[in-house]
Amino acid sequence: MLVVTEETCRNLITREDAFTAVEGVFAAMASGEAYNFPVIREAIGHADALYGFKSGFDRAHGVLGLKSGGYWPGNEKRGLTNHQSTVFLFDPDTGRPQAMVGGNYLTAMRTAAASAVSIRYLARPDARVLGMVGAGFQSTFQMRAAAAQREFEKVIGWNPHPEMLSRLEETAAELGLPFEAVTLERLGAEADVVITITSSFAPILTRDHVRPGVHLACMGTDTKGKQEVAAELVAAATLFTDEVTQAVSIGECQHAAEAGLIEEARITPLGAVVNGAHPGRSSPDEITLFDGTGVGLQDLALASVAASSARDKGLAIELHL
Amino acid sequence: MLVVTEETCRNLITREDAFTAVEGVFAAMASGEAYNFPVIREAIGHADALYGFKSGFDRAHGVLGLKSGGYWPGNEKRGLTNHQSTVFLFDPDTGRPQAMVGGNYLTAMRTAAASAVSIRYLARPDARVLGMVGAGFQSTFQMRAAAAQREFEKVIGWNPHPEMLSRLEETAAELGLPFEAVTLERLGAEADVVITITSSFAPILTRDHVRPGVHLACMGTDTKGKQEVAAELVAAATLFTDEVTQAVSIGECQHAAEAGLIEEARITPLGAVVNGAHPGRSSPDEITLFDGTGVGLQDLALASVAASSARDKGLAIELHL
Repeated sequence: MLVVTEETCRNLITREDAFTAVEGVFAAMASGEAYNFPVIREAIGHADALYGFKSGFDRAHGVLGLKSGGYWPGNEKRGLTNHQSTVFLFDPDTGRPQAMVGGNYLTAMRTAAASAVSIRYLARPDARVLGMVGAGFQSTFQMRAAAAQREFEKVIGWNPHPEMLSRLEETAAELGLPFEAVTLERLGAEADVVITITSSFAPILTRDHVRPGVHLACMGTDTKGKQEVAAELVAAATLFTDEVTQAVSIGECQHAAEAGLIEEARITPLGAVVNGAHPGRSSPDEITLFDGTGVGLQDLALASVAASSARDKGLAIELHL
Repeated sequence: MLVVTEETCRNLITREDAFTAVEGVFAAMASGEAYNFPVIREAIGHADALYGFKSGFDRAHGVLGLKSGGYWPGNEKRGLTNHQSTVFLFDPDTGRPQAMVGGNYLTAMRTAAASAVSIRYLARPDARVLGMVGAGFQSTFQMRAAAAQREFEKVIGWNPHPEMLSRLEETAAELGLPFEAVTLERLGAEADVVITITSSFAPILTRDHVRPGVHLACMGTDTKGKQEVAAELVAAATLFTDEVTQAVSIGECQHAAEAGLIEEARITPLGAVVNGAHPGRSSPDEITLFDGTGVGLQDLALASVAASSARDKGLAIELHL
């Protein structure tokens, strides 16, 4: 089996790799060739940790495995990442371990790639202003992945802690884009594409904030109770997601579904747009919303690319179990 | 992190190691210091494979992780084991990967250790005849582990395919014990301890077969629908198990529970006997039955011993992810 370190992943996996892998696995999920297994997520009662597994099988790409890991809030004090992830791949023909791949960098890349795929397929072609809600670790990955999808001329941003907005400004500068910190009112009125990437437990953007034709990529809500966008805004949008059952249970759509404002049948897997089974955006005034909940198959897809690429370039450690 | 190969596990892990590890984790489960997470088990629709994970956390021993793997029925033709298992351990303080341990040999050892623990704590002290039902790959591990627990003078055995009984005879000879192939009637009438280790989907042993005072270790039933022992025999016994919820859903107790012959409250975790919270056997005539369903924490316990031992002896491969 192969071992691919975090550092090798950082050196090997480009945004294009991540985009292609996530686009491909979303398509396979929508066509029924790939599915995620139930998620295990446990508060283990030690070190305040949340620990678990996301797993699945993609028959179209021959990828089987799991991402294990979780959230250890005390790690930062020890000089470690709070989120700890490792991906394990198995040979679908024999069940033997195939690769172990560091999952921290891949997790950030696959999450950013998901919203980039949604922008590619759903945002207006003439989108010029990118709005960022959230300025944490993930926000830089999101902005970089989004920037490649449209000819953006400007980034505007808002964060509950304004002192963190310099992170967005620096990232925008690297991309050669001007940045402006704005109110939520201005963000909603000016942005053609909005990415929300916070850990919020209350709505930040409301129905009144946004302009017609906006595309929203809601990437922060992955747990029951979290919320970035008002239920009325969700209900007013044409809805897309990575996995419908997750969208209505742990994703941004959970609140609108609970309030009876939307039904599951109104939510389309983004892969169906990739496949051509759904036309995507139908008019320049339509509000489209992608609810990115995060699925194990995204992690496996990127890990599989990392393993193949590391093997081909002689950068994988070979092990015999 | 450490990597411990299948071969190193075979060279390192003794029956005593396996016994002590399983005894300890059963005790931790019974005292609430260790628990298993939900089991993932999927028919992946490829190569007729069953694939999944068993996982858990043992706070008492600081062991967190999962066993991944499954059953690939076409492997034997390729010269590989049909059952493929790998154990992954994580540092409970930080979530970082700690060890990857080959799980095929450990699975056989932990399953045998579970019935050995049940024999130690539940069989009559004067047990002299060991009855084996089943002669597959696992049966030799079971016999060897059981033989260390009482002063057995003889092994008798039965198998649906009699031509496989030579395996039991050879193993008994290695242990210095005479072996006799018998009918189920004689097996039940003569054995003081019976181990069932088959893949049966219909009862083999009935209430009428067995003698008073027998201890039954039912180790083969780990799936809905499987059955080795008649529901009436289960109902007539004092019941012990590794995990009560598994016993009534996928273990030998499932059929008696479905028929309304027993209630969950009648089944005692074997660890409660190890802990001294339950007295175990109460009379020489009592029929005791251990329903060994197999839990992830057993695998993690043995893998943890293998990792520590391999590290101490310089037999582990060190990796930096």
